[in-house]
Amino acid sequence: MERQDKGLAWMLQYENIAWYEDGVVRILDRRIYPIKVIKVECRTHQEVADAIRKMVTQSAGPYTAAAMGMALAAYECRGRSEAEQTEYLKAAAYTISHARPTTTWRMEKITEACIAEAKKALAGGMDDVSEVIKDFAIAQNDERYAGISRVGKYMAELFPEHGAVMTYCFAETIVGMMLKEAGLQGKNIKLFCPETRPYFQGARLTASVARDMGFDVTIITDGMPAFVMKKEGIDVFTTAADVICCDGHVVNKVGTYNTAIAAKYHGIPYYVSGTPDQGHPTVDTVKIEMRDPDFVLQAMGTPTANQEVKGYYPAFDITPPELVSRVVTDQGVLSPYKLSDYKGVKDQFLV
Amino acid sequence: MERQDKGLAWMLQYENIAWYEDGVVRILDRRIYPIKVIKVECRTHQEVADAIRKMVTQSAGPYTAAAMGMALAAYECRGRSEAEQTEYLKAAAYTISHARPTTTWRMEKITEACIAEAKKALAGGMDDVSEVIKDFAIAQNDERYAGISRVGKYMAELFPEHGAVMTYCFAETIVGMMLKEAGLQGKNIKLFCPETRPYFQGARLTASVARDMGFDVTIITDGMPAFVMKKEGIDVFTTAADVICCDGHVVNKVGTYNTAIAAKYHGIPYYVSGTPDQGHPTVDTVKIEMRDPDFVLQAMGTPTANQEVKGYYPAFDITPPELVSRVVTDQGVLSPYKLSDYKGVKDQFLV
Repeated sequence: MERQDKGLAWMLQYENIAWYEDGVVRILDRRIYPIKVIKVECRTHQEVADAIRKMVTQSAGPYTAAAMGMALAAYECRGRSEAEQTEYLKAAAYTISHARPTTTWRMEKITEACIAEAKKALAGGMDDVSEVIKDFAIAQNDERYAGISRVGKYMAELFPEHGAVMTYCFAETIVGMMLKEAGLQGKNIKLFCPETRPYFQGARLTASVARDMGFDVTIITDGMPAFVMKKEGIDVFTTAADVICCDGHVVNKVGTYNTAIAAKYHGIPYYVSGTPDQGHPTVDTVKIEMRDPDFVLQAMGTPTANQEVKGYYPAFDITPPELVSRVVTDQGVLSPYKLSDYKGVKDQFLV
Repeated sequence: MERQDKGLAWMLQYENIAWYEDGVVRILDRRIYPIKVIKVECRTHQEVADAIRKMVTQSAGPYTAAAMGMALAAYECRGRSEAEQTEYLKAAAYTISHARPTTTWRMEKITEACIAEAKKALAGGMDDVSEVIKDFAIAQNDERYAGISRVGKYMAELFPEHGAVMTYCFAETIVGMMLKEAGLQGKNIKLFCPETRPYFQGARLTASVARDMGFDVTIITDGMPAFVMKKEGIDVFTTAADVICCDGHVVNKVGTYNTAIAAKYHGIPYYVSGTPDQGHPTVDTVKIEMRDPDFVLQAMGTPTANQEVKGYYPAFDITPPELVSRVVTDQGVLSPYKLSDYKGVKDQFLV
């Protein structure tokens, strides 16, 4: 394969995750990166919502995309009355927040915060608040990255001096920060990445990012974790999460639960990075998104089965707290049964 | 995808598994079937061994290929003295039996049996014993299929009247017989097939075969078994095995162990079909074949990662007896801890 990816630093620059400029939001298409470097161009906030729904970006990417989508919405309604613009932004916030059920609560917090910023500027007589929202999105990302850096530090402290770490899917900034911190702490870590079917985020994204940072990286199939845990002596299994429910249930890419069970069976700790999600006080509020089942009947665009057979594609699965050793937050390392120890709400939707 | 597969009946006809005729052995390429119907042509017995080594055929396919390869070897040495032909066949048996370490013992039994048949014909003054060996291979397959039919019957008896069965990889004739027997017993069974990366045997082969037979079949990724067990209420997990060690350890396609752990966690029984392998009295004799690691860095021919990253590809994994509920043999249903109850050696290398 011709090497097309541009490295972690490039990939996680805000302007490459999702970026508003002159009436367009451009989102890096992580469904195919780094095989191809394509940015999806959204010319309306509905197109941004649609891109989020279609998983053009994932992990924390949708949060940046949501804020940039709000900037685009502001551009769309520029010049109207203050009341009209506010109403328009509220409708846009609803559309964007509900693009994916799993992330709705955090999306609402982000888009509400964007509207609060917009209102101040509109009250000050500004006609077009798109740049105000964009600047706010950048400032929020800065704050989020500082929090993630702390998560990475606490996570790396849990790694052995020399050892093997298994991840799952792509934890975006968290995996980068975690590896950077592991390097700073002088930890000698090998990484094993299940490929993460059907989208191959583990192979395409996590493995590439880790290799860029100089780590020894090995890709395995999603059926191999148990074998590798037993044969290669994995010390830690770790993932980020799409949602950490306040009762300790972890919602993450389908395959996480399967791998967490294998980790438990082998006595390997499973550390989840992120913060408790106040929008999900218990697991009962979680609705697993079912995606296009036909997507499971292909791999990298080539069919794998005859068309009379059905596919099945839950985007996420749910790992119960009994399989979760610790939740690693920006405030420190918590038991999944004691997430009420996490204090404050300001940052919690940002990590 | 254009439907190219020709159905189970066609696929499991001896002449389509592996077939000797006029100095050529033709083996159905299961690495790509049913996406494409290709037969690999082997013009020497070494090419047959090479095809077995490269997994052109799998499951029980190599046993038919081995016998047909012996017929080809006989053709190669036709007309020589009785002693020379016998020596030539012994060398060919060694080459073919050692194509894959996991199956060597059974391959030796099959090729030895072929040589015994050949010797009788040579002693009777026959010049070219290739057709004798071919006829023997066919008779052996008939006997094997009768044994497999009993395995299928005993397995189907363990299924619920209405329920969901999860398989892994492709168990060839056994899966066909098991489903046929389930039908005869009036069992209303839905099938869930993990796709079985990196070769997709679950998607390409098992799912197609089961669909052909009229079953409700769903393909999932190899990371989904735990989710599906919990959400869809799987009643039984079942696989065949490349080797069932006499101490109850099961060697099968990598991913089996991972899925057996998930089954145990959910309290779902795991039934293995096959017979104890006298060549493996304990698991200590098992050597896991490591295959080309780059094969894990692609899917259906398309790269999934940048080339600086390593792959990892054990062909099999090992499931310990504590995860195996029962071993279903042609002689009945056994505990994995009591495989010494299996009597007789005549058929045991044939199922």
